[in-house]
Amino acid sequence: MRRPLPSPRAIVLICATVAAAAASMPCQALAEGRTWTLDDQLAVPELRAIAIAADGDSAAYVTRVAEQAGDKTVARLTLVDLKSGASRELLRANWIDQLRRIPGSEAWSALIDRGEGVQLYRIEADGRVAPIIVHPATVQFGEVDGWLLPGFAHAPLGVGVKAYSWSPDGRWLFYILLDGIRPERGVQYDAQVAELRGMRRPRGQATASLFLRAADGSTQLITKRPRSDLRSIASKGDVNWTATGLEYVLMDAEADGRARKRTLAWSFAEKRSREIDQEAQIASWILPGPRGGNLAAEGLGDRREIIEADGHGKRHSYGHFPFSIGHGAAFGGFRTADGRRAIVNARTLEDARYGIAVVELTGLRTIWGEASLIKCDFTPALDAGACIAEGQMQAPAIVTVDVDAGKVMRVASVSPQHDAIAPLKVTPGTWINRYRHKATGYVVWPRDHDARKRYPAIVVTHGTDADQRFAVQENQWDYPVQMLAERGYVVLLINDPATRQSVEIRDAYEAWALERAALAPEDMRKLLWLSGVASFEAAVEQLAAKGIIDKDRVGIAGYSRGSQMVNVAMTQSKVFRAASSGDGAYLEPVYEPDMPESYRSVFGGSPLDAKFLPNYRALSPSLRAAEACGAILQQVAAPHTGAIDFYKALRKAGVPAQLSLFPGESDSSDETHIFHIPSNRLAAMQENIAWFDYWLKGERDPASPSASRYGEWDRMKEAMSARCPVVADPA
Amino acid sequence: MRRPLPSPRAIVLICATVAAAAASMPCQALAEGRTWTLDDQLAVPELRAIAIAADGDSAAYVTRVAEQAGDKTVARLTLVDLKSGASRELLRANWIDQLRRIPGSEAWSALIDRGEGVQLYRIEADGRVAPIIVHPATVQFGEVDGWLLPGFAHAPLGVGVKAYSWSPDGRWLFYILLDGIRPERGVQYDAQVAELRGMRRPRGQATASLFLRAADGSTQLITKRPRSDLRSIASKGDVNWTATGLEYVLMDAEADGRARKRTLAWSFAEKRSREIDQEAQIASWILPGPRGGNLAAEGLGDRREIIEADGHGKRHSYGHFPFSIGHGAAFGGFRTADGRRAIVNARTLEDARYGIAVVELTGLRTIWGEASLIKCDFTPALDAGACIAEGQMQAPAIVTVDVDAGKVMRVASVSPQHDAIAPLKVTPGTWINRYRHKATGYVVWPRDHDARKRYPAIVVTHGTDADQRFAVQENQWDYPVQMLAERGYVVLLINDPATRQSVEIRDAYEAWALERAALAPEDMRKLLWLSGVASFEAAVEQLAAKGIIDKDRVGIAGYSRGSQMVNVAMTQSKVFRAASSGDGAYLEPVYEPDMPESYRSVFGGSPLDAKFLPNYRALSPSLRAAEACGAILQQVAAPHTGAIDFYKALRKAGVPAQLSLFPGESDSSDETHIFHIPSNRLAAMQENIAWFDYWLKGERDPASPSASRYGEWDRMKEAMSARCPVVADPA
Repeated sequence: MRRPLPSPRAIVLICATVAAAAASMPCQALAEGRTWTLDDQLAVPELRAIAIAADGDSAAYVTRVAEQAGDKTVARLTLVDLKSGASRELLRANWIDQLRRIPGSEAWSALIDRGEGVQLYRIEADGRVAPIIVHPATVQFGEVDGWLLPGFAHAPLGVGVKAYSWSPDGRWLFYILLDGIRPERGVQYDAQVAELRGMRRPRGQATASLFLRAADGSTQLITKRPRSDLRSIASKGDVNWTATGLEYVLMDAEADGRARKRTLAWSFAEKRSREIDQEAQIASWILPGPRGGNLAAEGLGDRREIIEADGHGKRHSYGHFPFSIGHGAAFGGFRTADGRRAIVNARTLEDARYGIAVVELTGLRTIWGEASLIKCDFTPALDAGACIAEGQMQAPAIVTVDVDAGKVMRVASVSPQHDAIAPLKVTPGTWINRYRHKATGYVVWPRDHDARKRYPAIVVTHGTDADQRFAVQENQWDYPVQMLAERGYVVLLINDPATRQSVEIRDAYEAWALERAALAPEDMRKLLWLSGVASFEAAVEQLAAKGIIDKDRVGIAGYSRGSQMVNVAMTQSKVFRAASSGDGAYLEPVYEPDMPESYRSVFGGSPLDAKFLPNYRALSPSLRAAEACGAILQQVAAPHTGAIDFYKALRKAGVPAQLSLFPGESDSSDETHIFHIPSNRLAAMQENIAWFDYWLKGERDPASPSASRYGEWDRMKEAMSARCPVVADPA
Repeated sequence: MRRPLPSPRAIVLICATVAAAAASMPCQALAEGRTWTLDDQLAVPELRAIAIAADGDSAAYVTRVAEQAGDKTVARLTLVDLKSGASRELLRANWIDQLRRIPGSEAWSALIDRGEGVQLYRIEADGRVAPIIVHPATVQFGEVDGWLLPGFAHAPLGVGVKAYSWSPDGRWLFYILLDGIRPERGVQYDAQVAELRGMRRPRGQATASLFLRAADGSTQLITKRPRSDLRSIASKGDVNWTATGLEYVLMDAEADGRARKRTLAWSFAEKRSREIDQEAQIASWILPGPRGGNLAAEGLGDRREIIEADGHGKRHSYGHFPFSIGHGAAFGGFRTADGRRAIVNARTLEDARYGIAVVELTGLRTIWGEASLIKCDFTPALDAGACIAEGQMQAPAIVTVDVDAGKVMRVASVSPQHDAIAPLKVTPGTWINRYRHKATGYVVWPRDHDARKRYPAIVVTHGTDADQRFAVQENQWDYPVQMLAERGYVVLLINDPATRQSVEIRDAYEAWALERAALAPEDMRKLLWLSGVASFEAAVEQLAAKGIIDKDRVGIAGYSRGSQMVNVAMTQSKVFRAASSGDGAYLEPVYEPDMPESYRSVFGGSPLDAKFLPNYRALSPSLRAAEACGAILQQVAAPHTGAIDFYKALRKAGVPAQLSLFPGESDSSDETHIFHIPSNRLAAMQENIAWFDYWLKGERDPASPSASRYGEWDRMKEAMSARCPVVADPA
């Protein structure tokens, strides 16, 4: 029988009462904070950006947080005094992006959607907001009819100003405006039609105009670009400022469908651009080094060689280190104006923690905090920095970095709500599977873990981003990992076997990424999917062997890359009794025509070719539905054909299955791959709790929004194929 | 080299001039009329309905005609004096449907969209229009976002009043109103999600309310029905009026997904309904006979037995006849109030002409006109009738029918524009193929056919509706058959081998229609597709043997069912050098999951089952693309996945291919399967002319809208696989 979870207040009360009677009650943790709630899961802030003032005394930072009132995910801009830690929310808006300090001023600038679409504003330290560039927002970003680019976990956004950049002296402003165009309605031909295959939302058309504004306010159009110039359409304002102008990159569509990059230089004096020969390194994600080259981490195994390479094949090695640099989840690269010091993010290879690598001509040194340093910004001399920091057991906080001293100091909380929670115990783990591949991850322990009991367990997987961060949605999606631990599950956050641990795994990932059929399909199958499943099995085996978990009550959950792993695990392994698979159906045969090269790298060719069909039958989940021995829930942001096929195949095979579609804001838009609508996130989390409670623990909660589904689940359970073990109701 | 077609005026001029010089010029035909133009093709009226006044003196009829000004297909209501033939257009509207005389009055009623959605109006003989029932039109029909039912060759329609029926004494009015409902936005599950697979336009929700209005104007709600009651949603007002009330049928959705019919009787006196035991025959398409049963035509071969059967197994035979009755393209059945006389449509089995079968207790007799009698209505005593009549060589006209005398008289033209054209010679044909199956059709001869020349030829096919009608769009779609003949093509309108010529063909069609895997896939393949292709080959062979056509310059065109035949013909036969395939891609593997039962009846099972994959490789056009030896144009009303797959496979195989998508009115709607947007029809016809002229005759027209495509066509022609014969440029 299910023991209803008392509310945090009730726990404190019970604890206080019972503590008086029995001093042995483990009340210490409770004394330090409360337990997790669903609202806590929902309200975990996404750490977007931080910008430090030039004097290093203050910083502004952007987070995004789900707000149940209004059912929106909103962006918040907060100003923090880095001396006192005093914080003040300056602004709350639909969207805040490209936060930067304005050179030569104490103000910040950012792209903000305050209801008029995304435009460029100036934000004073006192919180006043004034428009810099406002342009009619006629272009849509997101999972919405007329989209120009798909969105990433945000509601459909109208965009007027797409990107901008201040010259280092603050005198020049480069910016890009977008204008939606309505193409003439008429007959469409060939590739125009073929690209609509499987496209759920019609695409819009737009132009991007690149402008330069001078200190006197005069503005020059640099160039106007078509939609095919994705470089301009998707720009974040990546230009190189020089003494005489700026360098920028355009992308031209070639006749063969490929794109060609061109680098141009705009001259302040001539007021025009000319093409420059060599391809300039212009991107927000370049990691500049002190030798004028770019930094990178190379090599396989437990260490990386950090090298600096210029465009001419000259390489300088800073040595071998147990970390990588330039991880995409953290901040980019910085270099002082004199070029003597560079800073890039660093990330350890196991129990992955984010820190700072300071690279100078003399060598490389690192700065680590207690928590991971996720988003950082530095003063122009790169001597002081401010970061948003967090960890598996540490809620987000603002820290300062003394670069010379190598010191990190916590100065302010980012989310007092999460500070109030007593952290759950989270321990890093490493598991070797039967292919001798290593996978890393974390064990999130049930609160007040009782070593005499065996617990049900749930594996949560999503590629390689289980690391030292705080309950991030990008990793754990709407699997409420902490709530599940509160409810008595051991949760295993398990990464894919690391790509760079061996040549064969690296080659498989490379072939997949480059869409090359370089490896045999059976090797791709093993290295990219089956090895991961074997890692999950190894972890489950280990924890079961230690008496920690109950092998008969193990579930698995994952979205996106994780959904591949879940669907493969459920149709290849007999270990999991229940699964939740989030918004993904790659590997389903139905998508082969939409991505033939990708599928060729995995399967060898089309499923309708008798030569390759066996490769699909060996891996595609819907073709292996009859192998499944656990209940499979699929939660999707749109009615993906592959997910529908898998659902139908499971039902046909008598496997308990549910397909839940979470709606967008309106008929003309969809929920995003990473959900952004709080009510959907809440519903998905509640559904996951109900699903695992039902299938792993035999529990039902009449108050759950899923209660109306129990009848259907009962029917499916009864009709379950006899070949599968029946989970005994532990009640 | 192409000889430009002079305009009609120019021809008359040339003819007159040259005639003086050379009396042997064949100017006779020209003297009787002019040649076809593209506008004539476009303006062929669709014959929708006719309603005769109770006194037989006048009739109102509805046609639909494409209007280039406004780019809409509009409905016209015309009143014709059946004595004098004088005609007067009463009304022009977006939509006119369910035209009926109002019993006991001299007025008509109809469902009309005058800009407020489809509502019920009364039309006086003098043309005055007054609303009877107007209800907010919140429900969409058509290929449009939020559709309730798909449209049939019409622009998206808002519908307020769906259907109606007058009691025979005109005192009661039954009608159905639709109300759109916005379902609460929320998570959708399982079958709700699965039904979205491959659905391009989101579906809407609605209720249907059945009302009864009494003579005093008081109105009673009979019942309100959910969307699942398709019987009510799609109703045309099919009720049986009795002395004490009316009988109607509802459809209930059952738990297993099937629908169950219920027949109810409403009592005028009790003002409520009760369920009645036996299933009443309530449908607009029931053919009542004089013995109280229903009429049907049975049997195989060259004759049909016309029988009348009641619901209890009692059958009466009227004998064997060389025609069928109750064809869906014509009018339905009528019976006098005393039941002594019934009238149904009749259609001959070869060179199919439509006439009238008068069925009485004494026997069955027929009335045939010169032209086919397509839509007819009769006075209450069934002694006088009015029809819209047409034929392959006869433009539509209004005729009267004296039922007792068995006489048909032409009284008025329906389309003076088409009367002005000198008819092209059209001769019926019958071809026996190598399976010994017979197919019928027509040869449309080039104007001024020169027996010493061989002509290029084009087969146009669409199931079984090449019959004695006038250039109907439903048969020839946007293949401008008459213009092609004017341009020097022999056009062959060829039907599928008739279903009822043999048990095996009938069984194959039955298995297909009922989605039963009753025949082996190789038999289905042969009987439903390859035999048809063999008929085309037999016809081409025959005409080539007679020296009429040039075997090296033969094309093929067809839409819908015809598109299947075109795609199969192009990938199984080497006879055709060019093809135009219209809006269809059934047989493509991609659709199997959306219609597994239908595909199972054809292929045995899924293409991803190694057992059945060979059946797909033997028939699915995209899997046989490398067999194709002619240029294939696909014209589509929406970006159908199957059409895209076929296009891509053809291009990959080096086969010249084009995929042309014709847009809807807006981003939220599509062109319909049978095009309804005049500019699209015109563009499609012009494209077909350019396509066949280019690939069959080597001609190019710089003035064609396709001129911009010639470069691409040249590239494809040059790159064509060497295994295919190159068409020599006849210039």
